[in-house]
Amino acid sequence: MDTHALTRQLFVKNDSKIVMFVADGLGGLPQQPGGLTELETAKTPNLDKLVREGVCGSSIPVAPGIAPGSGPGHLGLFGYDPITYLIGRGALEATGIGFKLEEGDVAIRANFCTLDAAGKISDRRAGRIASEESAPLAIKLREVKIPDVQIFVEPVKEHRFVVVLRGTGANKGKLGDFVHDTDPQVTGVPPLDPVAGNPESEATAKILKEFVRQAQELLKAEKKANGCTLRGVASKPSIPSYEDVYGLRAAAIAVYPMYKGLAQLVGMDILGHAKTLDEQMEVLKENWDKYDFFFIHFKYTDSTGEDGNFDAKVKRTEEFDAAVPKIMALKPDVFIATGDHSTPSMLASHSWHPVPTLLWAKNCRTDGVEQFGERDCLRGGLGQFEAKHLMTLALANAGRLGKYGA
Amino acid sequence: MDTHALTRQLFVKNDSKIVMFVADGLGGLPQQPGGLTELETAKTPNLDKLVREGVCGSSIPVAPGIAPGSGPGHLGLFGYDPITYLIGRGALEATGIGFKLEEGDVAIRANFCTLDAAGKISDRRAGRIASEESAPLAIKLREVKIPDVQIFVEPVKEHRFVVVLRGTGANKGKLGDFVHDTDPQVTGVPPLDPVAGNPESEATAKILKEFVRQAQELLKAEKKANGCTLRGVASKPSIPSYEDVYGLRAAAIAVYPMYKGLAQLVGMDILGHAKTLDEQMEVLKENWDKYDFFFIHFKYTDSTGEDGNFDAKVKRTEEFDAAVPKIMALKPDVFIATGDHSTPSMLASHSWHPVPTLLWAKNCRTDGVEQFGERDCLRGGLGQFEAKHLMTLALANAGRLGKYGA
Repeated sequence: MDTHALTRQLFVKNDSKIVMFVADGLGGLPQQPGGLTELETAKTPNLDKLVREGVCGSSIPVAPGIAPGSGPGHLGLFGYDPITYLIGRGALEATGIGFKLEEGDVAIRANFCTLDAAGKISDRRAGRIASEESAPLAIKLREVKIPDVQIFVEPVKEHRFVVVLRGTGANKGKLGDFVHDTDPQVTGVPPLDPVAGNPESEATAKILKEFVRQAQELLKAEKKANGCTLRGVASKPSIPSYEDVYGLRAAAIAVYPMYKGLAQLVGMDILGHAKTLDEQMEVLKENWDKYDFFFIHFKYTDSTGEDGNFDAKVKRTEEFDAAVPKIMALKPDVFIATGDHSTPSMLASHSWHPVPTLLWAKNCRTDGVEQFGERDCLRGGLGQFEAKHLMTLALANAGRLGKYGA
Repeated sequence: MDTHALTRQLFVKNDSKIVMFVADGLGGLPQQPGGLTELETAKTPNLDKLVREGVCGSSIPVAPGIAPGSGPGHLGLFGYDPITYLIGRGALEATGIGFKLEEGDVAIRANFCTLDAAGKISDRRAGRIASEESAPLAIKLREVKIPDVQIFVEPVKEHRFVVVLRGTGANKGKLGDFVHDTDPQVTGVPPLDPVAGNPESEATAKILKEFVRQAQELLKAEKKANGCTLRGVASKPSIPSYEDVYGLRAAAIAVYPMYKGLAQLVGMDILGHAKTLDEQMEVLKENWDKYDFFFIHFKYTDSTGEDGNFDAKVKRTEEFDAAVPKIMALKPDVFIATGDHSTPSMLASHSWHPVPTLLWAKNCRTDGVEQFGERDCLRGGLGQFEAKHLMTLALANAGRLGKYGA
């Protein structure tokens, strides 16, 4: 079901404020069967208070059993079907380093590699070259010049960098993104040529071939990083904006570029340059009057989960909880606390487990849940629901949706 | 998912009886967080007894966060996807006053308006003319004669009336329904001409233009209602019948024309002329042997909710409960109690909140729920489910569905 076919025809505007406070990777697992999860272990008095006045549930990011990456995880929370709206790897990589993709841009994940005298790959990752060494080389590749295309090259980390093509002149708005990877996945053979998968991508493939040629020329004196391979060629995804589908002036307050980038893809404004949760709260307060919807992203429940550090994740969860009163002091009409997926420290990775979710608003049907935790949320009034429905519920609770049909 | 693709191939016939007892707007909200809803406050000993022997759940009328009108609300209960099967405004208006639309009919919501000497609208609602004054004028418009079309004009209320076109001769089955509204939404300009949005609707637009011309001629002596505007042009929706998709001989016992009309659109017979719940029970008893399925509609849980009257809704809920033994005395095989949506008196309007639902049958998997209420139903065996699945569950519990696949 395309929820936006409904929200687009039903949304109304009013003065309400909606805050979506996302603890990345919030959901967890107990350390032994029947034990407490990270969230259940954490002391979360502020969230617990809201849980008693609000309604809880378990959010399924994509589908049962599917562990999402950050892209689909957040698109789901933002109300976009994460199966329909896929962000290509190149576009996600560019987004993740804060590159602001424009309509028609084509982004590519690139790797430095080592070529032998015969032009065959001897190391697919250029000896895992250090970022300090590779960054200047990526910047050097900005010297590549090709007619009718603006080329951006951005260092990422170690052997990785990003290339973005922006068509100009004859190529303006004409660059397709169906070009096969050039990484042969094995050593002892040369990189593959960029090959177009459809006629609309012929120009892109040609540009990339010329890019590789010039790059090798620029890198020929290098010992380790004297070549490159290209992967995940992808256009800026075409995603309708929050303004379009919900009628919301939306803003994001995040620390990490990836989440700013994802918010930007759905048309949110990116606010401030906060480095801490306290600073994020300051930015929220300063901008409170200017927007209808705020997405606030907290990273460390995910990173501690990824580290497999149960206790650290508990602490970070408590830090997340401690920020809640600063949000509630601003008197939002709808407050949501959730995660984009689970990152149980027992798995040290993203997982498929449903995510505890709280929706607080004036007209919630309270459900008897008393504490914010995985098992408590199972008894919540939102039940188990696909994450993509959360925004519709937020709009409804904010009085921002008219009736469907007479 | 098209549930009818399954039911149509799997249904079998037997002697079982299914009763769907609908309390319009049944779901509610507590008066303060953690408090009791209208249904939880009401004493419902008869439903509670069946709850302990049956299975409960929470029905989502359309999708999470979506508050439906009566049309989509009932289509969902009847098992028709309310997104796929949309009833156009004109068709719903005609249905709502009990006009029996036939295949190919085109229905239009019309307003009397006041035109000045220059033919410009000075009042879009003809001074909110009283029904007593407007009804004879609507009936006078039956004098409009146009070749190859039968025209029905029915008074509704105040400035509103309904026009139905039924093609004859060259227009038989040929009248499209994509014609733009003629109400300019502002005063000081003349009504718009009816304009077809596609070639199939050219004839309809032409007929409507002539209708307006003759109508103004017939109304020219009037002070207030000397013109009219047309809106929501819509064909009778094409909805497969209960007989077709479920193999059921179905009947509706309702007091208000809207619900009789909705039932008629899915091929139910409309029984009796009951004005009270007691009379509805009499009609049920009289017709018990003639049908497989009965839809019984109770309006007042919705109207008291719309009035924002918590206590009155509690009382009406108790009235609904009191009728249950009369139904059970007839020994139905499947008994369902539910609503088409929630109408919390706290909101005084239809809402998106899930609807408490009970399904009682011989082979229910009982779920430990003891009382019929919003929070109790959260723990029920049907979970949270889209309303459109309820009919499939009814058929299954009636032994009316074969196995899917070998």
